[in-house]
Amino acid sequence: MKAFKIPEATIIRLSVYSRYLEQAEKRGIVTISSGEIAEGVGVSSAQVRKDLAYFGEFGTRGVGYNVKDLLYHTLKILGLNDEWNIILVGAGNLGSALLSYRGFRERGFNVLGIFDNDLTKIGRSLVNLKIQPPEEIAQFVKENNVKMAILAVPVSVAQEMAELLIKSGINAILNFAPKVLNVPREVEVRNIDLSVNLEILTFHLGMKK
Amino acid sequence: MKAFKIPEATIIRLSVYSRYLEQAEKRGIVTISSGEIAEGVGVSSAQVRKDLAYFGEFGTRGVGYNVKDLLYHTLKILGLNDEWNIILVGAGNLGSALLSYRGFRERGFNVLGIFDNDLTKIGRSLVNLKIQPPEEIAQFVKENNVKMAILAVPVSVAQEMAELLIKSGINAILNFAPKVLNVPREVEVRNIDLSVNLEILTFHLGMKK
Repeated sequence: MKAFKIPEATIIRLSVYSRYLEQAEKRGIVTISSGEIAEGVGVSSAQVRKDLAYFGEFGTRGVGYNVKDLLYHTLKILGLNDEWNIILVGAGNLGSALLSYRGFRERGFNVLGIFDNDLTKIGRSLVNLKIQPPEEIAQFVKENNVKMAILAVPVSVAQEMAELLIKSGINAILNFAPKVLNVPREVEVRNIDLSVNLEILTFHLGMKK
Repeated sequence: MKAFKIPEATIIRLSVYSRYLEQAEKRGIVTISSGEIAEGVGVSSAQVRKDLAYFGEFGTRGVGYNVKDLLYHTLKILGLNDEWNIILVGAGNLGSALLSYRGFRERGFNVLGIFDNDLTKIGRSLVNLKIQPPEEIAQFVKENNVKMAILAVPVSVAQEMAELLIKSGINAILNFAPKVLNVPREVEVRNIDLSVNLEILTFHLGMKK
């Protein structure tokens, strides 16, 4: 099983399937067909089968998939069998917004610590977590077995903070700053720029004029 | 100039370049080389030249790019010469968080209206905008020349709300619900699932174990 062979779109759909399977399990459904999953999430059933085939043989022809098994396997593939401790760097507007986003906790992501270099913010609380200075990151990460960080800081300090995170033992960063981070190859980075996403839409709207 | 030929990664980088050029223009810089842009945003200079080449000839060999011109053209390509009126559907946690995200306004996106089907929310205000019922969307969109919507509703109503938006004249949707929306081909959709992005990171971390 090699990561580089699997299209990112497949991983994203896998995440969508797993949510659908969670709902199905809650409703007490035992077996499910690729067609039912497909209809539930809005893709073709061939796509569901193709996506799942990357990871082995799950279903039984003519019977379908065991919901509990398939949910277990999709979560395992996504690395979600365990909970993940994460830290948030940047307690500004966006950082605060992200903290109140319920979707993280629902999928097993626990924000354990918040860090900001703004002296007026340090010591204040956000959603029951005290804002700490960046100098505390290294020790916090070590003590709490943290591997991932959400970076929601201004562009001007994004690279510097990324380097501090990596030096502190973080090896996966969800980056909200509109800046391409230079990181060692072994560090995983996902960039999310909310405005950029709107701009991709306006780009396509403009192309149609 | 055909949209389907241009990689999405190029559009994303174009958005990053344009922010960098905005900063350069503010600092009074007149000409800039691909190498300087590259260093400023963290990609190779060959990448900068390749990305810009999709859209024509901008620079002068040995001189570089005129900052003002290149900024104008990148913004034009991204459809950002005009401001965009948008509406937000879903006034929950995430919707409220997005409303307070300054990045949208900075790039010319104005959230003009908020809609929610929760009777306890309708009539209340969020950032000076009164929350309206979904039945008002069609008229609002027509009166305010709105083409884009941010969809931040639960999965269970995402498809239904998307259809209402499209029927109301919206042709671009930034979707935050973890659900693949079925929309006509001419409607542009961008999906952003914040948890999914964390899950892509955990997937890759898991692969390295």
